[in-house]
Amino acid sequence: MTVTIIGLGLIGGSLALSLRQHGLAAHLIGVEEGPDHAHRALALGLVDEIAADLPAAVRRADFVVVAVPMDAMLAVLPRVLDATGPRQTVIDVGSTKAALLAAVAGHPRRGRFVATHPMAGTENSGPDAAVPGLYEGKTVVLCDVAHSDPDAVQLVEKIYQALPMRLLYLDAAAHDLHAAYVSHISHITSFALALTVLEKEKEEQRIFDLAGGGFASTVRLAKSSSAMWVPIFRQNRLNVLDVLDEHLHQLRHLRELLAREDYAGLAEQIHQANHIRKIIP
Amino acid sequence: MTVTIIGLGLIGGSLALSLRQHGLAAHLIGVEEGPDHAHRALALGLVDEIAADLPAAVRRADFVVVAVPMDAMLAVLPRVLDATGPRQTVIDVGSTKAALLAAVAGHPRRGRFVATHPMAGTENSGPDAAVPGLYEGKTVVLCDVAHSDPDAVQLVEKIYQALPMRLLYLDAAAHDLHAAYVSHISHITSFALALTVLEKEKEEQRIFDLAGGGFASTVRLAKSSSAMWVPIFRQNRLNVLDVLDEHLHQLRHLRELLAREDYAGLAEQIHQANHIRKIIP
Repeated sequence: MTVTIIGLGLIGGSLALSLRQHGLAAHLIGVEEGPDHAHRALALGLVDEIAADLPAAVRRADFVVVAVPMDAMLAVLPRVLDATGPRQTVIDVGSTKAALLAAVAGHPRRGRFVATHPMAGTENSGPDAAVPGLYEGKTVVLCDVAHSDPDAVQLVEKIYQALPMRLLYLDAAAHDLHAAYVSHISHITSFALALTVLEKEKEEQRIFDLAGGGFASTVRLAKSSSAMWVPIFRQNRLNVLDVLDEHLHQLRHLRELLAREDYAGLAEQIHQANHIRKIIP
Repeated sequence: MTVTIIGLGLIGGSLALSLRQHGLAAHLIGVEEGPDHAHRALALGLVDEIAADLPAAVRRADFVVVAVPMDAMLAVLPRVLDATGPRQTVIDVGSTKAALLAAVAGHPRRGRFVATHPMAGTENSGPDAAVPGLYEGKTVVLCDVAHSDPDAVQLVEKIYQALPMRLLYLDAAAHDLHAAYVSHISHITSFALALTVLEKEKEEQRIFDLAGGGFASTVRLAKSSSAMWVPIFRQNRLNVLDVLDEHLHQLRHLRELLAREDYAGLAEQIHQANHIRKIIP
């Protein structure tokens, strides 16, 4: 099968590696706007060729993956579907879904498109961040599959199951809500923690000296790129604001307990937080 | 050298493994109040024997490590020093220092005590959480060494350098300030994030399904025990409140930028947060 991947960063590049590794892509065509990224993607062997003309690259493929940031996605996906024929299948791998599905709702080729969100990533970006096995054992959300052609959905299921990934079916609104709770808020928290420590701890050498594994793991996501995350926060703004308000409430509560020296209350909150161990072992 | 370790949890147990591995402890005596923990520590081979009588166990040792939670530490360390002779050396491995050093400031054996904080840990606790190599390559802070006898400081330096660890010298007040910035706030953030997600995401299966590596790493510290952390927050309360207020300020700022759709401002904040990558590679 010939696969065209549009956007050869962490997500698209890692998927290229996985598709190749599992024998799912005989020929890989990349479309990448940034000349440096295009050059690196070729040098790293993520794709077999770089195509400059997007519609032509789509027409040559059996399977098309759109893996660009969510702001670009709203413009690129309709163009991809414009070039898609009745036997080709197109997926996105973006982090928000409601705005995107609204953008292609009336498209004549809507049925060839399957909206997917593989729940995997790292704090790095660009083709050099692509890693084999990124998706292995993770969950992929398929959204609103009733609006996609059954054969397109079956192909996408077969591909993701081969990586192997766990399939989860949600409507777009539910996806965006849960993604805000479980993924987007973690990034806000981590950005704010980095800003806090950079503001308070003016001696950078001290941060380096004293940072243990705990700090490093909590602040890791703060290395994530604004090019990827600002469009996600924008498209999922109301859900992110809602969960962020709850997070501010929880932090203020912990602050109040500590300020008034209610250590039993603080211990009780920590016991409740510890419950996350049962869910994320 | 005979070593007595008081408290055989994650920190004391891991140090027992490291001392043994590096040939620094010919005989290891454990003192552990919890009968289950004492039994497990013996079964795991962390120590050679468990001693019931604390003063006797101290008197038999060349080197004594106090590795109990910080509230117990304030009571236990003076008792240890009461039993300490003029050629023995005692360290603590606790996460706060000002209150502890105040508690032993006038003790006749103060010179035999060296205050240390190895900047290493995990979210787990108890003897089963002990892991070899926990301290390897990490930083250990030695506090107020001018109040310790030179030969005691030299022994402690030699031991930590053998693990090997990087030595950093701070006074107790500076230690507590920097520890709040770089370590304690990460735990508050993580506890609050876990409480947020548990409050908003009532479907636990969804958390399990959708949690990628990013959420898992940000929420990892929320598995930490209240028995360890409430005493730390208590003893470092003013510094923790100070950095927590900055964190609330940063979160509110991100919220405001998103609420008023200032995406350029949000991108600028993320760029600033990204600077952490230069410090924590």
